[in-house]
Amino acid sequence: MNESSIFPERGRCRVVIENVAPEIDSGRFAAKRAVGEKVTVEADVFMDGHDSLSTILKFRPSKDSQWSETPMQFLGNDRWRGEFIVTEPGVYFYTIEAWVNRFESWQKDLQKKVDASQNISLELQMGAELIEARKQHAPAYDAERLQGWANELNSGNSATGNPLAKRALDKALTELMSHYPDRRFATTYEREMRVRVDPVRANFGAWYEMFPRSFAPEAGRSGTLKDCEAQLPRIAKMGFDILYLPPIHPIGKSFRKGKNNNVVCEPGEPGSPWAIGSDEGGHKSIHPELGTLDDFKNLVSRAHEFQIELALDIAFQCSPDHPYLHEHPGWFRHRPDGSVQYAENPPKKYQDIVPFDFECDDCENLWLELKSIFDFWIGQGVKIFRVDNPHTKPFAFWEWCLGELKAKNPELIFLSEAFTRPKVMYRLAKLGFTQSYNYFPWRNSKAELENYFTELTQTPVAEFFRPNLWPNTPDILTQFLQANGRAAFVIRFILAATLGASYGLYGPAFELCENTPREPGSEEYLNSEKYEIKHPDLSAPRSLEGLIARVNQIRRENPALQSNSHLRFHHTDNPELIAYSKSTDDGDDTVLTVVNLSPYYTHRGWLDLPLEEFRLDANKTYQMHDLLTDARYFWKDGKNYIELNPEKSSAHIFRLRRHVRTEHDFDYYL
Amino acid sequence: MNESSIFPERGRCRVVIENVAPEIDSGRFAAKRAVGEKVTVEADVFMDGHDSLSTILKFRPSKDSQWSETPMQFLGNDRWRGEFIVTEPGVYFYTIEAWVNRFESWQKDLQKKVDASQNISLELQMGAELIEARKQHAPAYDAERLQGWANELNSGNSATGNPLAKRALDKALTELMSHYPDRRFATTYEREMRVRVDPVRANFGAWYEMFPRSFAPEAGRSGTLKDCEAQLPRIAKMGFDILYLPPIHPIGKSFRKGKNNNVVCEPGEPGSPWAIGSDEGGHKSIHPELGTLDDFKNLVSRAHEFQIELALDIAFQCSPDHPYLHEHPGWFRHRPDGSVQYAENPPKKYQDIVPFDFECDDCENLWLELKSIFDFWIGQGVKIFRVDNPHTKPFAFWEWCLGELKAKNPELIFLSEAFTRPKVMYRLAKLGFTQSYNYFPWRNSKAELENYFTELTQTPVAEFFRPNLWPNTPDILTQFLQANGRAAFVIRFILAATLGASYGLYGPAFELCENTPREPGSEEYLNSEKYEIKHPDLSAPRSLEGLIARVNQIRRENPALQSNSHLRFHHTDNPELIAYSKSTDDGDDTVLTVVNLSPYYTHRGWLDLPLEEFRLDANKTYQMHDLLTDARYFWKDGKNYIELNPEKSSAHIFRLRRHVRTEHDFDYYL
Repeated sequence: MNESSIFPERGRCRVVIENVAPEIDSGRFAAKRAVGEKVTVEADVFMDGHDSLSTILKFRPSKDSQWSETPMQFLGNDRWRGEFIVTEPGVYFYTIEAWVNRFESWQKDLQKKVDASQNISLELQMGAELIEARKQHAPAYDAERLQGWANELNSGNSATGNPLAKRALDKALTELMSHYPDRRFATTYEREMRVRVDPVRANFGAWYEMFPRSFAPEAGRSGTLKDCEAQLPRIAKMGFDILYLPPIHPIGKSFRKGKNNNVVCEPGEPGSPWAIGSDEGGHKSIHPELGTLDDFKNLVSRAHEFQIELALDIAFQCSPDHPYLHEHPGWFRHRPDGSVQYAENPPKKYQDIVPFDFECDDCENLWLELKSIFDFWIGQGVKIFRVDNPHTKPFAFWEWCLGELKAKNPELIFLSEAFTRPKVMYRLAKLGFTQSYNYFPWRNSKAELENYFTELTQTPVAEFFRPNLWPNTPDILTQFLQANGRAAFVIRFILAATLGASYGLYGPAFELCENTPREPGSEEYLNSEKYEIKHPDLSAPRSLEGLIARVNQIRRENPALQSNSHLRFHHTDNPELIAYSKSTDDGDDTVLTVVNLSPYYTHRGWLDLPLEEFRLDANKTYQMHDLLTDARYFWKDGKNYIELNPEKSSAHIFRLRRHVRTEHDFDYYL
Repeated sequence: MNESSIFPERGRCRVVIENVAPEIDSGRFAAKRAVGEKVTVEADVFMDGHDSLSTILKFRPSKDSQWSETPMQFLGNDRWRGEFIVTEPGVYFYTIEAWVNRFESWQKDLQKKVDASQNISLELQMGAELIEARKQHAPAYDAERLQGWANELNSGNSATGNPLAKRALDKALTELMSHYPDRRFATTYEREMRVRVDPVRANFGAWYEMFPRSFAPEAGRSGTLKDCEAQLPRIAKMGFDILYLPPIHPIGKSFRKGKNNNVVCEPGEPGSPWAIGSDEGGHKSIHPELGTLDDFKNLVSRAHEFQIELALDIAFQCSPDHPYLHEHPGWFRHRPDGSVQYAENPPKKYQDIVPFDFECDDCENLWLELKSIFDFWIGQGVKIFRVDNPHTKPFAFWEWCLGELKAKNPELIFLSEAFTRPKVMYRLAKLGFTQSYNYFPWRNSKAELENYFTELTQTPVAEFFRPNLWPNTPDILTQFLQANGRAAFVIRFILAATLGASYGLYGPAFELCENTPREPGSEEYLNSEKYEIKHPDLSAPRSLEGLIARVNQIRRENPALQSNSHLRFHHTDNPELIAYSKSTDDGDDTVLTVVNLSPYYTHRGWLDLPLEEFRLDANKTYQMHDLLTDARYFWKDGKNYIELNPEKSSAHIFRLRRHVRTEHDFDYYL
């Protein structure tokens, strides 16, 4: 080799692998799955010429594990697909390898020559050579079998139609040879992709948010964490999986906000829980009026008895009274007069909130301290965090912080509260947030819902972004809820609970259908619980508790509703009737939801169902079982009539039951 | 710093850059441009929070050059765009850098506070601090100016409405500060992308393919390279830019194919030029019947006098008589009986062709020798190569070979002859082929043409794939041409020459409208020139020479037709009338082509033009000048009537002339 340096390292590797999916931002980020889910990987794999090739998907549950391999299947147009199941939380790695399969190329060509009645004597010898070349790579038993095949192919004269041709094309030989491929010139895809595997709860769960201080048994005092325990049976009866509490820390006193966000705070007003920190402590302390750390740990344990997981709010900001301000003045910006820089969104000023300065010289210690807040609460048994306004802290911080935390504890779940620009929301999801708030609250029309949920569930976004659907939050009372009475709450609740495997309600405002805004055009609640202690009447007859319990039970009984990956919209001829189905991977459970989007009018129309996708026979009756009313409809054909009167029910949640008894099922029929 | 190792390197860089375009396969391949073209780069650029940011596009004409910088503009939804012009052939590099613009953030907030009549005294001091911090980075003159601004902002009491506010927001200050940005925490995109800059001819040119041996002045003998010189005036008159010759090397004698690909070759039959090599030489030799190397060099020079560039065919395969077979037996596969393995596509056998074995142990020397074939002909003045069947040689070979050749001579052009699977075609383009044959020959209906050319010109494919449109080749006489007489040739020619900035014809079969297939269902020519010497009657009255000359002149006079980047299809209400326009970047030249796709029937219909895109006023008349017939149509409005009779003309090629004289242009009118 006179100029060997110019020969590229993998110059003899003829296979090309490209256009791999999922691969997020050139492998910069991991795809997401929950334990037990499938990772389906596709790629374009091809080579020069016409040889056969072998393609495998390689995966491993950590960077240090051995690769597992599974063959990929050819789909046509140079596209290949393989899949594997993720069984452990953590980070899996995967990549693709492919090589020229000389033996199968030879068999393919041989078949064509046999079909054309050509003389194949030389071909058989070439086959024998290929077999013998692999023999040395096989253990003794198989080596002997291979030699047997080679001898056989070499044995005879090989005129057309020779029985040796049949032997050479024997599937048993193909199978045997496939165990000893020649992978010297195999191409491995240039990157290893990752899948972050989260606990099942990352995919599926019903969240309930409430302010502990509003649940004292009697009016006029702050409820405590102990009082919250008394709410657990009610929350469990409604079927919630996660109880999420706004910040439970001491609340600042300087510039404390009064009722309805008033800049003047009357004595005795409790302040906003998001103005964190006072002389009573900071992010690792509990507000004395709520109780003690022991009370908190008791609440966590009691909740577990009801199969409820507690979620805490993490809001990285301080009241001006937070201990950090004198312990670490360098973590905050100061103005030329020496005062600390409070939060602003000019011309608005938030003097009760002081943001951290992530560009400060001491930012590394700041990062470490903030991470230690998570560590502290993880130590108290918390596994789920709702993170307040993550989009106002650096992306690099989150990527590092969430990465470190999950490396130690892959069971953690982080919900990103960012109702901001779409690319910012997606970036937060990519860099490590498990779930994300999203624009669901403002998607009301059929077209808006169909477009948005198609983007979230049927495009590459679905690989990294898990929507959590909240019809309301303490900050968001949408105009649709304000304007349309109890039916609006029913509609938005059913959409959230059936479109989203994860959804949440801010209660009891939601189930009590509270819908008065602070002022017209505002999405703030009047007399918001953010600034005062409430004493709700949970027994009000308008309460949706019963409906919520029913739907959460349906969600638990129907695995189809526990994932978004098979969400499909179906055509109806009425723009106020939206219809969509979800199915399990195996198609055994299919739930079809139809919602009348009008809170006022009865709507009727014809619905088109894809019988083939639903594995239904056009000639057989099937049953649609409405799990809300227990009514059973017998349908045939793909086109069926729907009528929904919001005064009775705004929605059907049908379970598809394929088999309907006929005379053929009757014992004496035959 | 107790655990400094965990802090990520760029942890304080708050800006994120993602979704960059063009970026082909994560930067693995270069985008393509011709000298003088624009590279428009877009990216999503954003950060946490609400600060202003600055984004620049950085580019350089080689890896070792200094970066040039140009600001990118904000498009909305976190998308930014910038552009640069490539002026030299070779490889340009580009990337993106962005940073938080603290000063503009401060100005933006100040403006809001001023608008809200807030006290801004502290704000002015903060501004002065920001200015003073940058002063040290400015040369003396500007440093003094900056200090002046800082002093001014610090100078006065600053009640609302203070004239200092106006000064602080002065654009001159913004501009001055923009020269001294704080880029310490700037984010640079993680990859450098490349643009391969080719000569203008890579984008635009009309090719003419002909077999030299068919141009002897008298019948009965082989034409020579000298005889080809006599054809140059005719080819130049037709307006072709490139004359492409099938292989001109000695032709093998063993298993030579006879007339119509007959396996029996009669004495005196010339054989296929693609069966390269005999005792007379190989890929670096000239067939003695065509002439000498000097004749070849003369032909190249003579062609240059007519502004015609010569293109050679490179077919990396051998006849069994090629000198390589005894010089380098290791470059070929041998069968168990010792014979060399000829080409096969079972059950077909090509005993006159021996392929190289790119997996052979001596493949490095094989690569070097094949590259030296290009080098040899480059040495004879050839800059353009049409590469035969590149999809049957390894991708890695081409990437290396074309890369090495272009590194020495960036003026080279390589046309890939691969009518194979789409992903293989695209891969060849990505790895270095300048232009590509494509599926144009088989796209006949309006929908087929619109879909295919939208994919080729309006998707990311356009960044790396340059189509060269051939209505026929020696291997392809399409069924449309076979079946539809002279009009079919007119239609396919006009489509090729106006849809494609690059196109080519295989003549004189094309201009003489030869349309007889070897047998029904075949796309081979009857009595194909591949296997025999022809003596065409170039003066036949059916010849399209006149039309070809006219259209090539139109192409030369209208820069709109010299690029595909602004190809747009327009609606007509008749499925047989296809309409499309091309424009220059500046929109000054716009050519609209309308073709009647039926070779038989007159078709008429209404055409919709996008007046705004064409910068036309709906109230003013404009002129459509048919460059084929010189007819001038006066149109108003976007909807206009079209009627095309194939017996007269199958197409309009309109140049849009915006100004039509009215009485206002008449000298005495005012």
